[in-house]
Amino acid sequence: MAADRAYPDGLGGAVGAGRGEVFQLLRDGRPRTRAELSAETGLARSTIAERIDTLLASGLLRSADKAGSTGGRPPTMFTFNPQARVVLAADIGATHAKVALTDLTGDVLAEEERRVDLAVGPEPVLAYVTEASAALLDRTGRSVADLLGIGVGLPGPVEHSTGRPVIPPIMPGWDGFDVKNHLYDRLGVLTLVDNDVNLMALGEHKTHWPDAPNMIFVKVATGIGSGLISDGRLHRGSRGSAGDMGHVQLPHGADVTCRCGNLGCLEAVASGAAIAARLAATGVPAETSSDVVALARAGSVDAVQQIRQAGRDIGEVLATAVNLFNPSVIVVGGSLSQAGEHLIAGVREVVYRRSLPLATTELRIVQSRAGNQAGVIGAATMVIDHALSPFQLDALLDR
Amino acid sequence: MAADRAYPDGLGGAVGAGRGEVFQLLRDGRPRTRAELSAETGLARSTIAERIDTLLASGLLRSADKAGSTGGRPPTMFTFNPQARVVLAADIGATHAKVALTDLTGDVLAEEERRVDLAVGPEPVLAYVTEASAALLDRTGRSVADLLGIGVGLPGPVEHSTGRPVIPPIMPGWDGFDVKNHLYDRLGVLTLVDNDVNLMALGEHKTHWPDAPNMIFVKVATGIGSGLISDGRLHRGSRGSAGDMGHVQLPHGADVTCRCGNLGCLEAVASGAAIAARLAATGVPAETSSDVVALARAGSVDAVQQIRQAGRDIGEVLATAVNLFNPSVIVVGGSLSQAGEHLIAGVREVVYRRSLPLATTELRIVQSRAGNQAGVIGAATMVIDHALSPFQLDALLDR
Repeated sequence: MAADRAYPDGLGGAVGAGRGEVFQLLRDGRPRTRAELSAETGLARSTIAERIDTLLASGLLRSADKAGSTGGRPPTMFTFNPQARVVLAADIGATHAKVALTDLTGDVLAEEERRVDLAVGPEPVLAYVTEASAALLDRTGRSVADLLGIGVGLPGPVEHSTGRPVIPPIMPGWDGFDVKNHLYDRLGVLTLVDNDVNLMALGEHKTHWPDAPNMIFVKVATGIGSGLISDGRLHRGSRGSAGDMGHVQLPHGADVTCRCGNLGCLEAVASGAAIAARLAATGVPAETSSDVVALARAGSVDAVQQIRQAGRDIGEVLATAVNLFNPSVIVVGGSLSQAGEHLIAGVREVVYRRSLPLATTELRIVQSRAGNQAGVIGAATMVIDHALSPFQLDALLDR
Repeated sequence: MAADRAYPDGLGGAVGAGRGEVFQLLRDGRPRTRAELSAETGLARSTIAERIDTLLASGLLRSADKAGSTGGRPPTMFTFNPQARVVLAADIGATHAKVALTDLTGDVLAEEERRVDLAVGPEPVLAYVTEASAALLDRTGRSVADLLGIGVGLPGPVEHSTGRPVIPPIMPGWDGFDVKNHLYDRLGVLTLVDNDVNLMALGEHKTHWPDAPNMIFVKVATGIGSGLISDGRLHRGSRGSAGDMGHVQLPHGADVTCRCGNLGCLEAVASGAAIAARLAATGVPAETSSDVVALARAGSVDAVQQIRQAGRDIGEVLATAVNLFNPSVIVVGGSLSQAGEHLIAGVREVVYRRSLPLATTELRIVQSRAGNQAGVIGAATMVIDHALSPFQLDALLDR
């Protein structure tokens, strides 16, 4: 499908003349006076005044309350205004799609969720995204003009630079589809696309681990994947396939055929779908990852044992990941992690036994806290970090 | 040992007032006029003029030749002057230490090398580094005042922020030694310390793969280690132990005890030392990684077969690393890689069979080209990138 409008890839590539510098300081949320901004940036007072005027006009800054005044005319303080724009975030999973509207800190203002079947192809699924987007704007009283952009997570490898899925195994009809331009044609705003687990990693990192520069987020659900945060930034890899833990071969799983065609992949052994299939083969009624969780919660010893063993198998691969990547935090999320501590207990058991002592001294292995909002928060964060970065901000201000 | 002078960690933490912006542009080596610099940065002509004066005074910029003038007075061009300062780089290995002096592009101007025994402890080894440093400055007619700093690579895990080795297995007496302050006390310049393989990765990346943002460099010698480049930057991990491939357990190596105390580590099976030990056990005279290389070059079928199998074993771990990290280049270096194509052939055989198709479509697996200079070039690059970064440059100019 040809794009009606070319995506403006050159948007805002110019090196900013320091407007970025003032704004980046203020993004921490702390109000400052012109004098303080001048001192912190080294820019002349006249330059600061000009930058502030531009940022006030854009709405991205506002005057802060002059609290604590004790007479005289206190200098005006300026602060970041996270309500200046809104961001759309779509988290498209194997069975559900969630669309949210957030402010410029990634806080969710409103959201919609619906069951979707990815196999119907990209156009009907993305039609739901645009419909839900319009509904969310309407419900919150915002307009397309208020939009900073839209971030989209898809359950497969995505070439981030072009926004196209690359041979995604569970998304028939999506391979190479131009998701970015398709949505840009309909919404006319900055559109960024990434793998769903990458965005869950970003969302979890932003909301709960901003001070942990190196983190691995593992999603264990129908499939198994991970997202890597390196020095505070998402590590996507050269084709966007970084973090693909699910198709690492387990030493002892060589007799199980994976949906990818190889033998003994972690996902073929330790995913929610694999556990459900094994339970079903013994006569226990289970079809999905959620069924396995429900069984474990209902006290099924078989389900609990299988989940614990899945944790150990995932731990085998994570032990190698820990030696290679040396994170300070591993976050375990996805539906199978919601069956209590069984999964994470198995992970801990193997990682702490198998990884290097130096790499595990300060390593924490924890449950996801952002839960099922991690994906949309991550999608919004991707858009905000891009659009408000020093290189892009000028384009936004010049619009 | 107490530091005589505290290392100035606060050095140059201030946000620069744009002098950095002009200089960062010019670091690409392309000469520009004041007007071009003003257009590219958006800074006022008067500001540009002031910044250029400061940078000319520091020597970091110089006027470029006004070639191609066709009459009239052509505008002056300014260009980065890589001879303005020099950098010391020390690559301390298990058996040898190399010290080099480079310019600000990392080009080696002079170097010294000596056999060292790390087990004598840090003080005699670092005494050699300072002696060689003085000799190199003397030989090139430069002085300590010309030094931008010194970068040091050590063959073990290093906490980069403090410059201290952390439980390094082959460096008795070095654990926790304050290498950074020890050298700062003697040389009085910026001192940065890192793991030797990290620096080899940095050196190889800078000299041969600057356009490959995601790279894995594997060193196969007495031990086995790797360095990861993520989005163009070294990924050190939370304790500086990232890239530690050597102690990943191989599925089939469980009966070999590693010097780290665990069973079946890659290094215990596939390192030059492990191969030498196996050859020696069959009566072939081999003690070191270099002996193995010499045997292979002399046509020993046993040595060649062992090197090829080592490549396959390393490939097993790299296959997982490729799925997790998705590099576009794997560079294989270290002494064992110098025995011809045998090692890399084994690596390729397994990685291309075992990794995800998406991750290997554009993956190249190549021999190191920077060779035994990778470490010193990387050490110099670490210092240059740090000291000439926007945040540090002002401190340099204000000295």
